[in-house]
Amino acid sequence: MAEKITPRSVDYSQWYIDIVLNAKLADYSPVKGCMVIRPRGYAIWERLRDELDRRFKETGHQNAYFPMFIPMSFLKKEAEHIEGFSPELAVVTHAGGEELEEPLVVRPTSETIIWSKYRDWIQSWRDLPLLYNQWANVVRWEKRTRLFLRTTEFLWQEGHTAHETKEQAVQETETMLEVYRAFAEEYLCLPVIAGRKSEAEKFAGAVATYSIEAMMQDKKALQAGTSHFLGQNFAKAFDVQFQTREGGLDHVWATSWGVSTRLVGAIIMTHSDDKGLVLPPSLAQEEIVVVPIFKSDNKATVLEYAGKVVAALKADGRRVAFDDDDSSSPGWKFAEWEMRGVPIRVEAGPKDAASGNVVMVRRDTGEKTFVKVEEAAAKAREILAAMQKDLLEKARAFRDANTRDVASLDDIRAFYGKEKKAKKQSEVDGESHEGTAEAAGGYARGLWCGGRECEAALKAELKVTIRNMPFDQQADCEGSCCLCGAPAKHRAIFAKSY
Amino acid sequence: MAEKITPRSVDYSQWYIDIVLNAKLADYSPVKGCMVIRPRGYAIWERLRDELDRRFKETGHQNAYFPMFIPMSFLKKEAEHIEGFSPELAVVTHAGGEELEEPLVVRPTSETIIWSKYRDWIQSWRDLPLLYNQWANVVRWEKRTRLFLRTTEFLWQEGHTAHETKEQAVQETETMLEVYRAFAEEYLCLPVIAGRKSEAEKFAGAVATYSIEAMMQDKKALQAGTSHFLGQNFAKAFDVQFQTREGGLDHVWATSWGVSTRLVGAIIMTHSDDKGLVLPPSLAQEEIVVVPIFKSDNKATVLEYAGKVVAALKADGRRVAFDDDDSSSPGWKFAEWEMRGVPIRVEAGPKDAASGNVVMVRRDTGEKTFVKVEEAAAKAREILAAMQKDLLEKARAFRDANTRDVASLDDIRAFYGKEKKAKKQSEVDGESHEGTAEAAGGYARGLWCGGRECEAALKAELKVTIRNMPFDQQADCEGSCCLCGAPAKHRAIFAKSY
Repeated sequence: MAEKITPRSVDYSQWYIDIVLNAKLADYSPVKGCMVIRPRGYAIWERLRDELDRRFKETGHQNAYFPMFIPMSFLKKEAEHIEGFSPELAVVTHAGGEELEEPLVVRPTSETIIWSKYRDWIQSWRDLPLLYNQWANVVRWEKRTRLFLRTTEFLWQEGHTAHETKEQAVQETETMLEVYRAFAEEYLCLPVIAGRKSEAEKFAGAVATYSIEAMMQDKKALQAGTSHFLGQNFAKAFDVQFQTREGGLDHVWATSWGVSTRLVGAIIMTHSDDKGLVLPPSLAQEEIVVVPIFKSDNKATVLEYAGKVVAALKADGRRVAFDDDDSSSPGWKFAEWEMRGVPIRVEAGPKDAASGNVVMVRRDTGEKTFVKVEEAAAKAREILAAMQKDLLEKARAFRDANTRDVASLDDIRAFYGKEKKAKKQSEVDGESHEGTAEAAGGYARGLWCGGRECEAALKAELKVTIRNMPFDQQADCEGSCCLCGAPAKHRAIFAKSY
Repeated sequence: MAEKITPRSVDYSQWYIDIVLNAKLADYSPVKGCMVIRPRGYAIWERLRDELDRRFKETGHQNAYFPMFIPMSFLKKEAEHIEGFSPELAVVTHAGGEELEEPLVVRPTSETIIWSKYRDWIQSWRDLPLLYNQWANVVRWEKRTRLFLRTTEFLWQEGHTAHETKEQAVQETETMLEVYRAFAEEYLCLPVIAGRKSEAEKFAGAVATYSIEAMMQDKKALQAGTSHFLGQNFAKAFDVQFQTREGGLDHVWATSWGVSTRLVGAIIMTHSDDKGLVLPPSLAQEEIVVVPIFKSDNKATVLEYAGKVVAALKADGRRVAFDDDDSSSPGWKFAEWEMRGVPIRVEAGPKDAASGNVVMVRRDTGEKTFVKVEEAAAKAREILAAMQKDLLEKARAFRDANTRDVASLDDIRAFYGKEKKAKKQSEVDGESHEGTAEAAGGYARGLWCGGRECEAALKAELKVTIRNMPFDQQADCEGSCCLCGAPAKHRAIFAKSY
C-alpha cells in the first residue's frame, strides 16, 4: 500500500491526506466538514487523552459534563465572544417536532453555559477555586476543512476554572500552558514554543491568550494548545460574584484552556515520512509488530518461534501485533506496517529460529539490529525509548534550522519566498539558482511594536501572522519593529500557519 | 446536609432528586431537559465507562467516532427507524450564517451514519466482522425528563457491528447482552434479568431486542442496557453488500447495543437510603474517608495519627479522602460523607491515637468495627469486598421478594394495587386493611401469548408493560396467556417502568 502515498516533495497536502486515509486513521463523512475517526486514529486520541487527563488530575482538576446546547442569548452576553463565534455557529431551531422558542446553538466552546452554572455554585471564597475540565465534542462551521486539522465537529477538552484573585487565575493560565508544553514535548514529541498571542489573535472574550506552537514539515506553524486568562469578563457577563475573605463582594476570575483532535494531525505531520505514518512509541496502538517469514515447509517451526518472541515481548509489557496471516507476502506486510507507523518491526525467519536471533527494524531510521531472542525485550525497550527521544530532537533540529532572525519587512518577504520572483529575474541574467529553494519560510523571529496595523498589513500581504511572543525571548527587546520601524516592545514569531 | 433528603416513604421521586442534587452528582441546566453532570457524578460515570470499555476491548471491540450530525434523508432510509425516532429529533437548520440545504439531525442513535460508512469499508467477507463502539453524546427530545434517568442529551456508548452470517450477528447480540449482565451484577451490584423484548417494545429498526432489566426500590423496572439484532435491515437500507466466501453477494448482518448515563440513576435508586447515596465500592470516587476527631489541645497529635492511617490505606491502593477541615464538626462531617456515599468512614480520635485503634463504619449497614491501625488496610479491603457482594445480594433479595407469579389479568390488577379500590369498599364494610399495602407491584411473571392486543390493553389500563421474556425462564410455557387466555408461547416479566 505504501505506493499510494504521494511523496512530500510532490504534494505535501496530498501526502498528509494519503497517510490519514491509507493508515485508516480517519475518513470523510457524508456531512460536509465532519470526519469519521477510525479505530486506528481513535486509538491515538485515546492514548493522548488518557495521558493528558492523568496530568490534569495530577494538577487538581476534575472532570464534569455540561450540555452541548446553549441558548443563543447566552452567547450574546459577552460582546467579543459572540462577535468571534457568530459566523461559525450551528443552530438547532426545531426539536420534538416543534419550532423552539429560542434557538439553541451547538457549543463552539462552553464558557457561557458553564459560567451560567458557576453563578449557582459560587457564593463565597470558600467555594473557590473550581478546577473543572470536560472532554466533549464541539462544532465550528468552517468553510475549508481538512481531516483532523480543521473539521466542523471535533473532539477536545476544555478546562474552565474559577478563582478568587487575578493572580491565581493568571497562575492557572500559566500552569496549564506548561502542562500542555510538557505533554506535547514528552509524550507527543512535538517541540513547541510557549508564548503569548497578539491582541488580534487572542480568543474571543479573553484578556490574554497563551499558546504552544509547533512547526510542521512544510515549515508552517500549527497552534497545538491554548490557555486563556479571561479576567472577570464572563463573571461580569453572567453576574458571578462571591463574598471575599474580607467580607466584600467581587466578580470571580476565570481561565479556560483546550486542546483538540487537531493534535493528531500535528503528530502525523511532524513525524511521518514518505513511507507513511511515524508515531512516537507512547502513542502507538502497537509498539511492535512481529512478522514471521516462512514457506509451507517451515511454517510450523517459524510460527512457533515467532510466537515465543511475541510472548516474551508481551510479558515485558509491550503492545504487540503478530502478523501471521499467510495470504500476503512479508514484503507487503513490511510496507503495510511501516505505513501504519508501528515503531518496531521484528522479523523472524527459519534461520533466526535456528540461530535464536531476531531482526529488529526501527521505523523512523530504518536501522536494523540483530538480537538474541533472550535480549529482544530489553532491546525493544531501549529502541522505543531512543525513538521517543530522537523524534523530539529531530523535530526540534528541523524547527531551529528553519527559524531565522529578521530585522525588516524585506527580510520577512525574502524568507517567505517573495525573493523568488527577483531571483527568477536573476536566473535570466545567468546568475545562480541559490535562493530558489522550494520550501521557503519557517519561523521568522523579530522585534515587534505591538501595533495592530503593521500586523494586519503583514497578514494581508503574505498570509503571515504572529504565532506568539515566546515567554523566554522577551528580554532585551530594544530596537525597531521589524514590520513598521516603530519602537519595539516584544519579540515575536512570525509564520504561516494551519 | 442529610436532613435535606426527603425520606423514601414520604416521596420516592423527591428522595431520588434530593440525593442527586445534595450529593452534587448532577444539576439542572438552563436548557430544558438537559442536565449538568457535576464532578462527583461524572466520576461515577468515568469509573463505569472505563471498566465497561475494558470489557469491550477484551471481547475484541475497538472504539471509533462518527459525526453527530446526520442528514435527515439518512434517517428516512429505514422505515421503522425514522418512525420510532421522528418525534424526538433535534434539527439543525442553520449553520455558518446560512440556511442548510438539507437539515441535519443531532444523532438520537448512529446506525444510519455508521452504516453509510460501512458501505465504503466492507467489500468482502475478509473485511468482516467490524466490531466498533463509540462513546458519545446523543439527543432525544423528551417531554418529561428526570436527572440521569431520562434527559434530552445524554452520554452513552453504542456498539455497531457487522457480520458475515445471521448466526454470527445473533451470537454477538447475545455476547454483548452477557457482557452487560456480568458488568451490571459484578461491578454495579445491579441484579438484572436478561431476556428478549416484545415486538412492541423492541428498538425501531431491529429484528429483535434483548435487554437487562433492574428493579428499583419503588419496585419499578428500569431497562439498564439493550442489545439489538438488526438483521440485514440497515445493510439493505444503505446497500451494504459483501462478497461471500462462496463468491456470491449478500447483505451484511448487523447488531447494535448500548448503555447510557441512566445507569448512574439506576445505581443511585437501587442502593441508596434515607441518609443519602450508597455506592458499590467499585464506583466510589473515595472508598474511604478518614475523619479525625480533635479539639484544639490535641489537634496535632490526632492529625498526625490520622495522617498515618491515611498513608497506610493509600499505600494499600485505596482511594482515600482525608477530611481534616476544622470549620465543621465531626457529626456534620459524618452526615455529609454518608450523604455522599463513601463506603467506609474511619474515625480517629485522641483515645484511638493513644490505643493504636481506629473505628471503621460501613456505609450500607452502619456496622462499626474497632481495628488495630496495623490491620486497618486489610480490614478495609475485607469490608469493601463484603459490601460489593452484599449490595448485589440485598438488591436481588428485594427483587425476588417483589416478584409474583400471576395467572390472570385480575392477578395483575391485584398486584398493582387495583385491589385498593375494592378493598376500600371492603373497609367500609368493616373488613381488614390487608392488601392496601402502599407500595404495590413489582415484577409480575406470567405466561403470554405473544399477541400485541392484550399487551397494548394492559399498558393502557395499568401502565404495565412487558419488560422482557427472560432467557432462562422459557422452558415449559404451556398454558394460557395470563392477559387474554389464548395459548401461551412465552413467560414474561410484567412491570411498571422508568
